[in-house]
Amino acid sequence: MSQSQIPVAVLGATGSVGQRFISLLDNHPWFKVVALAASDRSVGQKFSEACRWVLNDSMPDYARDMVVVPATPESVNAKIVFSALHNEIAKDLEPQFAQAGTAVCSNASSYRREEDVPLLLPEVNAEHIQLVKIQREQRGWSGCILTNPNCTSTGLTVALKALDDAFGVKKVFAVSLQALSGAGYPGVSSLDIIDNVIPNIGGEEEKVEWEPRKMLGKYIETLEPPPRARVQLADMRFSVHANRVAVIDGHTVCVSVELARPTDPETAEAILRAYSAPLSAGELPSSPRPVIQVREEADRPQPRLDRLTGKGMTTVVGRLRRDPILDLKFVVLSHNTIRGAAGGSIYNAELLVNENLL
Amino acid sequence: MSQSQIPVAVLGATGSVGQRFISLLDNHPWFKVVALAASDRSVGQKFSEACRWVLNDSMPDYARDMVVVPATPESVNAKIVFSALHNEIAKDLEPQFAQAGTAVCSNASSYRREEDVPLLLPEVNAEHIQLVKIQREQRGWSGCILTNPNCTSTGLTVALKALDDAFGVKKVFAVSLQALSGAGYPGVSSLDIIDNVIPNIGGEEEKVEWEPRKMLGKYIETLEPPPRARVQLADMRFSVHANRVAVIDGHTVCVSVELARPTDPETAEAILRAYSAPLSAGELPSSPRPVIQVREEADRPQPRLDRLTGKGMTTVVGRLRRDPILDLKFVVLSHNTIRGAAGGSIYNAELLVNENLL
Amino acid sequence: MSQSQIPVAVLGATGSVGQRFISLLDNHPWFKVVALAASDRSVGQKFSEACRWVLNDSMPDYARDMVVVPATPESVNAKIVFSALHNEIAKDLEPQFAQAGTAVCSNASSYRREEDVPLLLPEVNAEHIQLVKIQREQRGWSGCILTNPNCTSTGLTVALKALDDAFGVKKVFAVSLQALSGAGYPGVSSLDIIDNVIPNIGGEEEKVEWEPRKMLGKYIETLEPPPRARVQLADMRFSVHANRVAVIDGHTVCVSVELARPTDPETAEAILRAYSAPLSAGELPSSPRPVIQVREEADRPQPRLDRLTGKGMTTVVGRLRRDPILDLKFVVLSHNTIRGAAGGSIYNAELLVNENLL
Amino acid sequence: MSQSQIPVAVLGATGSVGQRFISLLDNHPWFKVVALAASDRSVGQKFSEACRWVLNDSMPDYARDMVVVPATPESVNAKIVFSALHNEIAKDLEPQFAQAGTAVCSNASSYRREEDVPLLLPEVNAEHIQLVKIQREQRGWSGCILTNPNCTSTGLTVALKALDDAFGVKKVFAVSLQALSGAGYPGVSSLDIIDNVIPNIGGEEEKVEWEPRKMLGKYIETLEPPPRARVQLADMRFSVHANRVAVIDGHTVCVSVELARPTDPETAEAILRAYSAPLSAGELPSSPRPVIQVREEADRPQPRLDRLTGKGMTTVVGRLRRDPILDLKFVVLSHNTIRGAAGGSIYNAELLVNENLL
Repeated sequence: MSQSQIPVAVLGATGSVGQRFISLLDNHPWFKVVALAASDRSVGQKFSEACRWVLNDSMPDYARDMVVVPATPESVNAKIVFSALHNEIAKDLEPQFAQAGTAVCSNASSYRREEDVPLLLPEVNAEHIQLVKIQREQRGWSGCILTNPNCTSTGLTVALKALDDAFGVKKVFAVSLQALSGAGYPGVSSLDIIDNVIPNIGGEEEKVEWEPRKMLGKYIETLEPPPRARVQLADMRFSVHANRVAVIDGHTVCVSVELARPTDPETAEAILRAYSAPLSAGELPSSPRPVIQVREEADRPQPRLDRLTGKGMTTVVGRLRRDPILDLKFVVLSHNTIRGAAGGSIYNAELLVNENLL
Repeated sequence: MSQSQIPVAVLGATGSVGQRFISLLDNHPWFKVVALAASDRSVGQKFSEACRWVLNDSMPDYARDMVVVPATPESVNAKIVFSALHNEIAKDLEPQFAQAGTAVCSNASSYRREEDVPLLLPEVNAEHIQLVKIQREQRGWSGCILTNPNCTSTGLTVALKALDDAFGVKKVFAVSLQALSGAGYPGVSSLDIIDNVIPNIGGEEEKVEWEPRKMLGKYIETLEPPPRARVQLADMRFSVHANRVAVIDGHTVCVSVELARPTDPETAEAILRAYSAPLSAGELPSSPRPVIQVREEADRPQPRLDRLTGKGMTTVVGRLRRDPILDLKFVVLSHNTIRGAAGGSIYNAELLVNENLL
Repeated sequence: MSQSQIPVAVLGATGSVGQRFISLLDNHPWFKVVALAASDRSVGQKFSEACRWVLNDSMPDYARDMVVVPATPESVNAKIVFSALHNEIAKDLEPQFAQAGTAVCSNASSYRREEDVPLLLPEVNAEHIQLVKIQREQRGWSGCILTNPNCTSTGLTVALKALDDAFGVKKVFAVSLQALSGAGYPGVSSLDIIDNVIPNIGGEEEKVEWEPRKMLGKYIETLEPPPRARVQLADMRFSVHANRVAVIDGHTVCVSVELARPTDPETAEAILRAYSAPLSAGELPSSPRPVIQVREEADRPQPRLDRLTGKGMTTVVGRLRRDPILDLKFVVLSHNTIRGAAGGSIYNAELLVNENLL
Repeated sequence: MSQSQIPVAVLGATGSVGQRFISLLDNHPWFKVVALAASDRSVGQKFSEACRWVLNDSMPDYARDMVVVPATPESVNAKIVFSALHNEIAKDLEPQFAQAGTAVCSNASSYRREEDVPLLLPEVNAEHIQLVKIQREQRGWSGCILTNPNCTSTGLTVALKALDDAFGVKKVFAVSLQALSGAGYPGVSSLDIIDNVIPNIGGEEEKVEWEPRKMLGKYIETLEPPPRARVQLADMRFSVHANRVAVIDGHTVCVSVELARPTDPETAEAILRAYSAPLSAGELPSSPRPVIQVREEADRPQPRLDRLTGKGMTTVVGRLRRDPILDLKFVVLSHNTIRGAAGGSIYNAELLVNENLL
């Protein structure tokens, strides 16, 4: 089977993350979308009629006339499904697909904390994908579930990975200024955010205080069964404040870190610039190019100007400076529905294919 | 002289902070505006013609027909001048007024760090106003200069004061989401902030990392001359990130603190609620009522909904919770051009009058 | 019964217009709120718990602890009910209240087009309130239904009334730039309006092309029964385009008019300034003061700066100039949830009381 | 000389329209940027240092290290210059370039009304470019000046052209909701537009009431000298209201038209869809593809979603419906800094080359 013919489907296709999947999969060199699945309300309609499209990029032609199908293994004949399902629904449906032999690349949070489910940023922890072997063995699945992290954890973890490799990260203070698209559509009411800030996002702080620890954790294989492999949570402490601001796309995070081996901002900047993805994750279709971009201007990164760096897959860092309490301060920007959601899941799927784990 | 007849003037009257002074001084029970001063470009014009009014409240009638005068002691015959001048101009002009016998209540940063100049939030450090005696003696002035802090330091310092009194504050991590009016008019270009965040405000972080230490510092009188009194900087460390967001008025600050005597969020909340201003500052016309309001909702304070609490003079605090690295996390909101600028200067002037230091 | 003791209730109290009613009725000189009614979901809860408050003004104390009741005549013991119900619900419920003897002052559109129901702007067509006598006779009600117009029709009609009286209005082109609060809460998704305009509002154009014709129509009494009175639609033609823009409160309307007796902008401006309400409507608690304000600046009215003119009850007009196709062009601004909704209904109720029709 | 080697320059390169020129000329198939010119303040600096870049697309690499030169014929050795100069400066400088043999493709309004200067939208009035022959003869220039219209006139005129060809346009009522980028950078203060509308743009209404008449006018050649050719203004009347709204890019215009031969919305829609550019203008690198897109959704076009249709060169029309006073109502959207400014000038230059008039 040629890679250009891998049949894939999108679950939750009509929502805002679903739309991003459809847009990013247009002309994908390896994947061909064969089904768009959504809730009962949409099933049987042409996608162009079922979906209120909210992206700037127009709806790809391939999707317009596809008829929406139910999100069940019986209705979706694909090797990979990209899941933009709500968490409660994902919890039920994703295992059914995995059981039926499909690889589920999920944006939902339902399985991120399971020990045998990779929580994956290929440019950070590509080797964690090996957990799918354990997953299949333990659960008796021929398919699998791969997850990508919360959209705020994403850029933060990429930047921390580079610093952790070089200096050892001990403590992380992070305050997010998050985009509206992270709440889905219709999501945040305009009356709540014009001329305003909402200083809380339900459940977000807990996720961002935990998920990076798994992704930055060590992958350990043991000889004795079972299980033969696991991820040891990184020994770091996080304190997070999450805020919603009037930005369409692009999460900005203000970060202060304490390092095991303190350094100066210039050295840290050089380390961030030089960071590259693990070998297996560096030359995939969705690999960020570069993985990290460091901006030198005093007032960057900014979401409107920088979110599409590297087609929205690059993590943009700026304002590296000394922190008066910990060691370093900086700002991280990442596109929340591309790198932080749909683009991330697609990148995960590419790694799965590349590792011959499909 | 009856208090209702104290003649006052506004310097820099046409700018956005100048306008706020004019609005807040309308029908003030003690002060009567006798002069509006601005730059040469405006001098000689009626105020209503010289000024592009940007506040929601309409221009007070008393100001409309006043003719703008130069910002010099010769042209301004007032006991108190409220200074909304730019820092460089303030640096030159304010001492001329103090020398000429006028009390200068300044919103400029030029003299905040001078040892004999009070940096004042009456509900926090009313006794620091006694420094004006030293100031007059040392500088030979019959007038004086009083300053109010940077608008982001303001609400933060009020909240920290209550916590410091009760538990001792050691370290403060603060990330601001600041309103546009803080940059003056025209200030921030709309092209820079619609669908965007600017993750830097020049000079702001340094101010907020230092100013609270002076305001929370101990006022010490010594018997030996000179000087006989000074403020000892508080022994706290601050790390600040400053951001500009698309909000008209109201600075939101995410804060994490380390305490000398750790406590739980409920106790801290009770302490914040119970905080009251020093006796001399509690019953003035501009005294915040209450000094601190604690919101219990999970997503408050919000700038659009809460900035006018206590006529814009109250500090609003919410989301008290444990911090995984330090001790407590919370959110502070303060109206940046009322409590954080014009209203603060007027409150300072009222304290000066009340302490018989005019 | 003293006027200060007229018991009133709000139906649909938790929505955005309901909240505005509650806010405007705080300390009303004639009315006392005795019940807050809402949907089943809220019934039995304290109002402060049932309602997500979205106004800048904080929730009045009187409302906080009131227990929400069902919106039925049995549960609501008031002489007047203010209806912020959705149209379909209003259609069923409002007649039940009228039947039960209550005066319903409604913001819903359900009964605006009924021949015996006044569509009322007291400063425009106070005498139309006499239709309630016909309504009572025909329907056998001891109560009645009074309606206020669509929020975009409101300011437009006030301005047209002054011009029609003086010059005769023949044709009206009107393009609205409408605020978000007009769509209720949650209403418009932030993703649909940040950095955007929505060039349509369902059903709005038809309303604004018809409602002013009724309000500007002639009230005719006939001796022969039945009916003995009716309103003859004004002989004017309207063309309306409706747009939603990123404004919290305040509808801006660009208007061009053709007059039966053409005039110049200066004369029209003088006529607008001089316009006063009919005698019976001029001195009520909610009477706009002034009815119309004409701004002379080249770039006013603006919603953020002018919407609260006359406590949000005044119609603000600006940019009077010649129209190259018709006769005059101008801009009208009116606060859509005060004059255009809750404030308008309260004003209607005051007129009812004043005319001894309660 | 191969077309790929035509040397061009940008005058006013650091402003927002100048930046758009630089972005659109990146990898242009015919033109090569050889100079970036700006005001004295920037001369001698590297472009990346002289310019505060405000576009979402990042600064093209070719421009980063170019040294900014003065905007004089001596300093700029190009066959074509794209002028993003302010009108007063353009008035002086553009003739100097034309005199020196350079073709000036100008976005400034200074020469739009000159009888021998083409005001050009190639998809509308390509033949008007022949006026440059008269211009050269009359003024003794070897170069020339070509102008593109005001950004609000642009989309409006494209839509009117299709309707005028088919039905004859008599009267046009147009109300604009214009984007912020039309005011340049820094342009509109954020304090003036967040939660607001500005119902006036200086000089704009006059331009939009006149410019379409020239572009839709008839090109007439006469045998008797001089001049041998001229444009007869179209016999149409326009009434325009101009508004600024909180949108980054994309002007929305609500239009009502009276036709000489009235038609129904469906027929008009078909005519708009079928409209194609004149032969000489249809296959150029910047030709809009399609010229006009008609959206069928009830709430489109919207600036955020539709402004980049056809790479920002397409005119998007929607909401075709009957007008109760004139004949048809509809909404037009056009990207103001691409089709309405820089992209338009480049398209004009391509037509000049294609017509062998360079």
